[in-house]
Amino acid sequence: MWQLFQFPLCPFSRKLRLLLGEKGIGYELVRESPWARRDEFLDMNPAGQTPVVVDVQRGTVLIDSMAICEYFEETVEKSAMINGTAANRAEIRRLVAWFDNNFYRDVTGPLLEERMVKRLAHRLAPDAKALRQAMKAAIEHLDYIDYLLDHRNWLAGATMSLADLAAAAQISVTDYLGGIDWKGHEQTARWYRGLKSRPSFRPLLSERMEVIGPPAHYDNVDF
Amino acid sequence: MWQLFQFPLCPFSRKLRLLLGEKGIGYELVRESPWARRDEFLDMNPAGQTPVVVDVQRGTVLIDSMAICEYFEETVEKSAMINGTAANRAEIRRLVAWFDNNFYRDVTGPLLEERMVKRLAHRLAPDAKALRQAMKAAIEHLDYIDYLLDHRNWLAGATMSLADLAAAAQISVTDYLGGIDWKGHEQTARWYRGLKSRPSFRPLLSERMEVIGPPAHYDNVDF
Repeated sequence: MWQLFQFPLCPFSRKLRLLLGEKGIGYELVRESPWARRDEFLDMNPAGQTPVVVDVQRGTVLIDSMAICEYFEETVEKSAMINGTAANRAEIRRLVAWFDNNFYRDVTGPLLEERMVKRLAHRLAPDAKALRQAMKAAIEHLDYIDYLLDHRNWLAGATMSLADLAAAAQISVTDYLGGIDWKGHEQTARWYRGLKSRPSFRPLLSERMEVIGPPAHYDNVDF
Repeated sequence: MWQLFQFPLCPFSRKLRLLLGEKGIGYELVRESPWARRDEFLDMNPAGQTPVVVDVQRGTVLIDSMAICEYFEETVEKSAMINGTAANRAEIRRLVAWFDNNFYRDVTGPLLEERMVKRLAHRLAPDAKALRQAMKAAIEHLDYIDYLLDHRNWLAGATMSLADLAAAAQISVTDYLGGIDWKGHEQTARWYRGLKSRPSFRPLLSERMEVIGPPAHYDNVDF
């Protein structure tokens, strides 16, 4: 049985869990708070980031969310999520990197820092300016998703792919933290409602982070 | 013919160029300075980063250095650099992400900012404290490479892989910018000498960035 080290609002763990859910791969959650920098966790992953996936019996340790997704994509054929021609696959990987790096840097990362880490680890209030900037950046990122969906059924092309899962993972954490204003983004909202109603998404929506609650629309599929 | 948009000290373009060199894939260099944020370049790649690879005739545009490497790994069989079992491949990708993200964040990124971007774009002097921190981080990263080479012939295992190319790309830019003290890292130096002497590496070592010159040992294979 795979063990997956994560915390409920880790967007990279959510991307991976959506992939595992689509592929029907079972796993057990292990709670890890990377900001606590636990020694045993750092010994396992010097980068100190979640997710990490471990199979104790086989002695397999998988690190880095994209490397882990590629591993399960290579080893479990069902529901291929990096699919199509080499050019399609490059476009999927470009968008996964876009959401993992740019969306996270501009939106999810600052929101997690201000609304979660500061509260849990330092008992500090969030910085209002940083929150405003992140929420402004969220609007620009949703505009880009609208633009992609003007030309395509799914973010990277004609079929659902890891790009959709990576985007939905970041958006779901941002939405939990009250960082998304859905007004004016009907295109993206429709696409996100479709993803939210998938069985792979339900377990994520029912989980709660201690101390911090989501807005009322968060787990509503018809928000 | 592929066109590769880059600047001489872009570590991500260097990783890709080492891969293309090993695979014997031809390309033409196009100079791009991402810090200038040229409109036509941003239209092509909203992330604004090098490398970007274009085949004008086929209308193919490839973005994100890892997505591009995966593309050439999938389409050109020669000299496989993401090879072995699924677990080996996961370890290669983990280390590529480590050097692309962590080494870059701690060492190459700050050095490029202080010693290149500040000088070229803003005519400012580097911040001495930021330089000291980056050079201290470089020592810790070389310690980690020493540790990996204590257990393995190459960074990710028994054979050369994209992990070695990603690490050598970051190290070569850091070395050009005078950020590496090779004393006490004989293991890593021996591994790096082996990579430097490969035909794929020679074109990189002979290139110069305007205004900024490398230290005397930089292009010497027997440094």
